[in-house]
Amino acid sequence: MKVFVLRIGHRIPRDNRITTHVCLTARALGADGVYISDVHDQELIDTINSVSKRFGGAFQIDAGRPWRSTINGWKRAGGSVIHLTAYGMPLPKVIDRIRRSPGDKLVVVGAEKVPGDLYELADWNVAVTSQPISEVSALGIFLDWLFEHSRLEASFSNSEIRIVPSEHGKTVLTT
Amino acid sequence: MKVFVLRIGHRIPRDNRITTHVCLTARALGADGVYISDVHDQELIDTINSVSKRFGGAFQIDAGRPWRSTINGWKRAGGSVIHLTAYGMPLPKVIDRIRRSPGDKLVVVGAEKVPGDLYELADWNVAVTSQPISEVSALGIFLDWLFEHSRLEASFSNSEIRIVPSEHGKTVLTT
Repeated sequence: MKVFVLRIGHRIPRDNRITTHVCLTARALGADGVYISDVHDQELIDTINSVSKRFGGAFQIDAGRPWRSTINGWKRAGGSVIHLTAYGMPLPKVIDRIRRSPGDKLVVVGAEKVPGDLYELADWNVAVTSQPISEVSALGIFLDWLFEHSRLEASFSNSEIRIVPSEHGKTVLTT
Repeated sequence: MKVFVLRIGHRIPRDNRITTHVCLTARALGADGVYISDVHDQELIDTINSVSKRFGGAFQIDAGRPWRSTINGWKRAGGSVIHLTAYGMPLPKVIDRIRRSPGDKLVVVGAEKVPGDLYELADWNVAVTSQPISEVSALGIFLDWLFEHSRLEASFSNSEIRIVPSEHGKTVLTT
């Protein structure tokens, strides 16, 4: 199962940091890549690729394609689409069905407002709490549940540097 | 057990949105409140209090006290201090000991750089992955684990409005 994240509504420069946090969260929690919809943001792509180069893995980042065409292409290829929204069904109620569903998973996170038809286009609208929250933490919690809480100690191949866990300090190995 | 979040290194306006996401995440995931260290940011306080008024609960937000005095006060009162950092010990390895430890919990999240002695002052330095991540998702995942994945469907008392979960749409009740 491949898992990609689709970030909708990214605005330069307003969302630069939040979208960076979305991408770092997606990568750290085991997603295969992120699509930034509709706008091309080379600086963001460079930032994330630089993290991947240093810390390893094969995380992909792509920007500029219209969100609707990403979703339609994903569905045509047999994947399913999960939209994270406080208005959706509670994560604990639907996560088993999502995990068991066939095909790759596209996890959609919007900025403040998302297009209304996204709620219909998504196979699942999923609420990480029915409260105002952050798309960054909603994504992190969703991926942690999707991967059954198994990704927090994953290692990344081909890294240049690696953090070694410490009780009180900072240890970084050059690999 | 009371759980508060201490946000260190908040800069106006650079961190306005990230710190807002930290506060919303803390509230949605069941923390009792947030301390914003060292700077007073009335606009942030007003934003978060307005969310709490509409969506309920008794979330507290306080800003301007030096971070060191918050941590020292917390420890003197018998609470423990958990610093979220990619350099720390993996969350799955330490969460049981943290949950079993007596006293209230102060969860510290920094902005990009945190003071070096924080690693010594903290009872636990905890890594939500040993990868570059976001303090927003790290906090959300940590709180979800701390509360044993039980807070995602919690309801909040005294709300003016309440979201009713929908498969494909938006339903909000005025309460």
